[in-house]
Amino acid sequence: MAQPQYLTGDAAAIDDFIGQFDVFLIDCDGVLWSGDHVFEGIVETLELLRSKGKKVVFVTNNSTKARPDYQRKFTALGIPSDVEEIFGSAYSSAIYISRILKLEAPKNKVYVLGESGIETELRTENVSFIGGTDPNFRRDMTPEDWQGIADGSLLDPDVGCVLAGLDFHVNYLKLSHAYQYLRRGAVFLATNVDSTFPMNHNFFPGAGSIGIPLINMTGQQPVALGKPSQAMMDAIEGKFKLDRARTCMVGDRLDTDIKFGIEGRLGGTLAVLTGVNNKADWEAKDAVAVPAFYVNSLSDLRGASR
Amino acid sequence: MAQPQYLTGDAAAIDDFIGQFDVFLIDCDGVLWSGDHVFEGIVETLELLRSKGKKVVFVTNNSTKARPDYQRKFTALGIPSDVEEIFGSAYSSAIYISRILKLEAPKNKVYVLGESGIETELRTENVSFIGGTDPNFRRDMTPEDWQGIADGSLLDPDVGCVLAGLDFHVNYLKLSHAYQYLRRGAVFLATNVDSTFPMNHNFFPGAGSIGIPLINMTGQQPVALGKPSQAMMDAIEGKFKLDRARTCMVGDRLDTDIKFGIEGRLGGTLAVLTGVNNKADWEAKDAVAVPAFYVNSLSDLRGASR
Repeated sequence: MAQPQYLTGDAAAIDDFIGQFDVFLIDCDGVLWSGDHVFEGIVETLELLRSKGKKVVFVTNNSTKARPDYQRKFTALGIPSDVEEIFGSAYSSAIYISRILKLEAPKNKVYVLGESGIETELRTENVSFIGGTDPNFRRDMTPEDWQGIADGSLLDPDVGCVLAGLDFHVNYLKLSHAYQYLRRGAVFLATNVDSTFPMNHNFFPGAGSIGIPLINMTGQQPVALGKPSQAMMDAIEGKFKLDRARTCMVGDRLDTDIKFGIEGRLGGTLAVLTGVNNKADWEAKDAVAVPAFYVNSLSDLRGASR
Repeated sequence: MAQPQYLTGDAAAIDDFIGQFDVFLIDCDGVLWSGDHVFEGIVETLELLRSKGKKVVFVTNNSTKARPDYQRKFTALGIPSDVEEIFGSAYSSAIYISRILKLEAPKNKVYVLGESGIETELRTENVSFIGGTDPNFRRDMTPEDWQGIADGSLLDPDVGCVLAGLDFHVNYLKLSHAYQYLRRGAVFLATNVDSTFPMNHNFFPGAGSIGIPLINMTGQQPVALGKPSQAMMDAIEGKFKLDRARTCMVGDRLDTDIKFGIEGRLGGTLAVLTGVNNKADWEAKDAVAVPAFYVNSLSDLRGASR
């Protein structure tokens, strides 16, 4: 496969690159920051892009936060942002349910496996739900649960969809409920299917590892609403009315970010080396995706104007 | 494939069948009982086999109970049994760890994802372990957990094995610990990989669905110690010194019981129709396994002497 063009330090190439696009879809973790550490020059780089009239959209698979929560994180880290520039997998899921799935009443409730970010976004789209952070689901099984889940008396007949995201409070009771709804024909969605979740410079179970017991039990695959799923790209395009040919996806991961941009037939993809993947990954014979461009760090794009 | 011989009602065939074997490995749920309902004639059938000098061994994948717990269930259901006749996946796992894996000190502790049955059997084999039913693992994540699991300060350096079984108290904290031990090179074992667990005439998450997040995160498959894994057959053979050619596996499931017997090159396999699978399943073109014999119910074997 054709190898990417390296832009770091090449002012002319950077100017040319930036000129090709109106919209930059930018992944957050590994691109703007790692944990609570913002990479050097990021604020100035975003300012540069905006000053050139570029639209920036922050695209994240993290489903635990709603857009306002995410914006608070940007603010706390000193990065200016607008809530309308943020696009997370919880929001993507809520839009998909309300505008594409359009569940018909009365079977229009969503059973949520996840945290408050999903609940906030579902409320924004007026989607009713159960589960989630409800304390009544954060407990051990009782004999009444075994019986009532098995015979259906404890199940809500109005549930028509199961949405599995990252749930730090996953337990046997929640998985048992979710499984029964799927057995009864509920639509199976996942905010995203990342197997791991990066935290504290290590990895923890990701949304994909919370929902996989349900895949294992049902033999069914969920529709995933995070990168690299094109359902997320469709939702972004619908919201921002972007021209795909004039849009560039920026990210550190080949299997989510770069793949997302390529499969979405965007005008370009830019890899950064401040996160998970490196040069050897796309040079490998079995590379999952090869970016069109790469820089050491997103802030190298300032090279154009310095 | 050759289709099985039907024995129900054919006294001569039954006499001939029983005469071919010295040992009967018998699955429990779906063969002897369903939930708390013992099938008609089961007690008499087991008596008949024993009166003819046959050895019976009850082989179960349920890892939540140790052999003494299981024997209490037999007694409560009115089925005479000896604890030495019972062989569960928790016991099978304990034997595998102590006699085959033989972890060398100091890295010889097992991190358990599971209930007390596993702990009891590990104690029987003098295997030290952490996790399991320890209340300190049955709680939400704290900021100290994120930090200490990520940097390793909360991990036990002596853990050399992760054993995943059916855990009704599975949570994010336990999965995070188990994952880190695997990342650090611990041997990955599973009591069994059944995706579902039958209870109250319905299905709940099985041991395989508790451990699958770890498979998803590591890309690694565990050694499974329950049916149809031949590691379990080897452990049974080692304990009972049986002659495989004179041994018959009896069960209701083709993908665990019958497959277990065929792959173990036993003298015979007998399917019963009181559980999960039926005639159409082994007559299907893509049948996972075809038994050598079948009866409607295990108690049909009494036909020989009536």
